[in-house]
Amino acid sequence: MYKLYYAPGTCALASHIALEEAGANYTAERLDFKANQQQSPDYLKINAKGRVPALVTDKGVITETPAILAYIAQTFPKAKLAPIDDPFAFAQVQSFNNYLCATVHVAHAHKGRGYRWASDESSFADMKRTLPKSMASCVELIEKGMLKGPWVMGEQYTVCDPYLYTIELWLEGDGIDLKSFPRVADHMKRMSERPAVKKVMGEQQAKAA
Amino acid sequence: MYKLYYAPGTCALASHIALEEAGANYTAERLDFKANQQQSPDYLKINAKGRVPALVTDKGVITETPAILAYIAQTFPKAKLAPIDDPFAFAQVQSFNNYLCATVHVAHAHKGRGYRWASDESSFADMKRTLPKSMASCVELIEKGMLKGPWVMGEQYTVCDPYLYTIELWLEGDGIDLKSFPRVADHMKRMSERPAVKKVMGEQQAKAA
Repeated sequence: MYKLYYAPGTCALASHIALEEAGANYTAERLDFKANQQQSPDYLKINAKGRVPALVTDKGVITETPAILAYIAQTFPKAKLAPIDDPFAFAQVQSFNNYLCATVHVAHAHKGRGYRWASDESSFADMKRTLPKSMASCVELIEKGMLKGPWVMGEQYTVCDPYLYTIELWLEGDGIDLKSFPRVADHMKRMSERPAVKKVMGEQQAKAA
Repeated sequence: MYKLYYAPGTCALASHIALEEAGANYTAERLDFKANQQQSPDYLKINAKGRVPALVTDKGVITETPAILAYIAQTFPKAKLAPIDDPFAFAQVQSFNNYLCATVHVAHAHKGRGYRWASDESSFADMKRTLPKSMASCVELIEKGMLKGPWVMGEQYTVCDPYLYTIELWLEGDGIDLKSFPRVADHMKRMSERPAVKKVMGEQQAKAA
């Protein structure tokens, strides 16, 4: 039995969908970010970084989305969520997920979490103004090459897909017009139609209400 | 035969050391960042992101440090650079490397690459002022728990170690006093004494001169 700590609207959605697609036996535990629950003493014992996602396994806790996604793919091989027996193909999955984690998610985080890297209100306002440009340059790279289609890695659905979908849900709010990125928009629509995605979105939204 | 594209002072050092530790047959190709060679049309065909590292293999190119490091560990199993047969232990390696990639390296990047996320000179100055605080909070987490000692994952040297060493080399310039972080300082010293590290550092510095 796995337990995933998440909050609605965060990157933990990717791991949540992956657990569902894998057919894992898991529970999803919502943290209340408005009450700053991710910084509570109890949660900091689970994840000292005070962030989500955190996946509790019977061996211990795993943090960081790309690490959790690779773990789910390796632990549920029948779900075929990554080419785990081919180091080069697996590296392509990891490379894509690392790009989302360290570049695209980081660009997005400058909208509301500028205090991580700066101190002045004027800097936060500047970051918000710069956001559509920095996000667009990321989405353009995905549109023009990284997203092979119909899924990120081509014909085979992998853990890259729920991660990209998670970020696709942020794009409109980040000032991106998806009409300029038809392949990304198509991927987002295709993802939204998957039963596992519908189930997880329903659960996260119901709990959030 | 592998080819690693790198520039001195960048995170590509981690992959360079890992290739050396693995006993891989490789060449290291230096890019001249001052001449903006990473944005040249020829290099953008290798890595459309215009960054280093990029590892050219006989199957294609791998980018993003955590993906390259996991690939090296999986491709050279005799070097025992990661617990590749234990998904949970492997996830801990990946989690550490993802933290360095998406949080610590990103914090560091606000010293000189603020233009990625903001536009005004005043914001860049603010980021530089905030840097020692944001880096210190990262290093504190590593000092107090993530670094098990003597190596990152404990008794076994892994691909986490050259990656942490790469970032340790940046700390003084980022305003961090290593006297406050004795376990990290000890790790840095231990790394600097490894033959593979001495060889790679000598090669990068000789070419840079």
